Amino acid sequence: MNERLKKDIEFIVELDRMKTILRQTSLIGEDKREDDAQHSWHIAVMTMVLSEYSNEEFDVNRAIKMLLIHDLVELYAGDTFCYDATANLDKRDRELQAADRIFGMLGEEKGGFFRSLWDEFEEMETPEARFAASMDRLQPMLNNYYNGGGTWRKFGVAQEDVFKRISPLKGTSDQLWQFVENMLEDAYNRGLITKR
Amino acid sequence: MNERLKKDIEFIVELDRMKTILRQTSLIGEDKREDDAQHSWHIAVMTMVLSEYSNEEFDVNRAIKMLLIHDLVELYAGDTFCYDATANLDKRDRELQAADRIFGMLGEEKGGFFRSLWDEFEEMETPEARFAASMDRLQPMLNNYYNGGGTWRKFGVAQEDVFKRISPLKGTSDQLWQFVENMLEDAYNRGLITKR
Repeated sequence: MNERLKKDIEFIVELDRMKTILRQTSLIGEDKREDDAQHSWHIAVMTMVLSEYSNEEFDVNRAIKMLLIHDLVELYAGDTFCYDATANLDKRDRELQAADRIFGMLGEEKGGFFRSLWDEFEEMETPEARFAASMDRLQPMLNNYYNGGGTWRKFGVAQEDVFKRISPLKGTSDQLWQFVENMLEDAYNRGLITKR
Repeated sequence: MNERLKKDIEFIVELDRMKTILRQTSLIGEDKREDDAQHSWHIAVMTMVLSEYSNEEFDVNRAIKMLLIHDLVELYAGDTFCYDATANLDKRDRELQAADRIFGMLGEEKGGFFRSLWDEFEEMETPEARFAASMDRLQPMLNNYYNGGGTWRKFGVAQEDVFKRISPLKGTSDQLWQFVENMLEDAYNRGLITKR
């Protein structure tokens, strides 16, 4: 087998572990935590469904690819809960090291392409990256909302912090932002989330 | 909230159940069955990694989208084990009904687009559909091979049947086909798979 294909297969086999990396979010109606593979799939399909609500045109295909690989760094850096301030202090360093390791498994050209997608996602400066980040953040909110509060209740998360977390959506899609505002207000009214 | 967005959100929430639909394949090195969301994610990324080995040019983005939604029918039709001849008798009917139901949740235009992707995948006549089908079939083979035989051993599957299952790859990618031939021969030599 040629060296290039050998590397690709090793990479693909390594990816299988994404199915074992648990996030804090639970599946809707299940006492079972979501993993990185499930999450990445869900937000990629969400991009197909919700792209039409973007304020500006963007490359949906690039956003989907970004989302499919955005969490690969967690193979080595683990999942960092977004509302855990301490764990987030060294998150960037841990993930940069992990990015070198996972994308370094591939040949230079392909590894470089995957890495550029990840960098773009992290920098959140292009319309593709902003839409992708919005999906990444909206999905766990939906799961919490349809799960009677989920991690919002479990960790006593304040509405202000959720708004901060979903802020990339503001300016990205007026219609989805409106939807989120209504959902978070309803979540507060129903006691699923606190206010400071 | 407008009616269209309401439908889209209901669809997205319904998709969460894909994370609970178990396949026969196990995760590599884990005593845990894979679910449809994990599988769909894995083969979408595999398409990004392996598309370069295709014999002919094809639209990678379309193949990825196809794979992301190809198993949605299992929300209602369940997963049908590919080597279960009896269950496969009415698979097509069950899945057609499920397709009407799941894609019918979306507005006409978007539902129609999703349905056309699914139909194309099922018909396996375009280069995109053939490459997608190849990934769909190659991934569980990799998991079995790296799992000491997995479902091949568990159900006493014969090499001839696995070759039949992976046949869409033949003619789609000479390099990947060569890889599969070597892997299946090695699997036989190591007693992971039988021959008739």
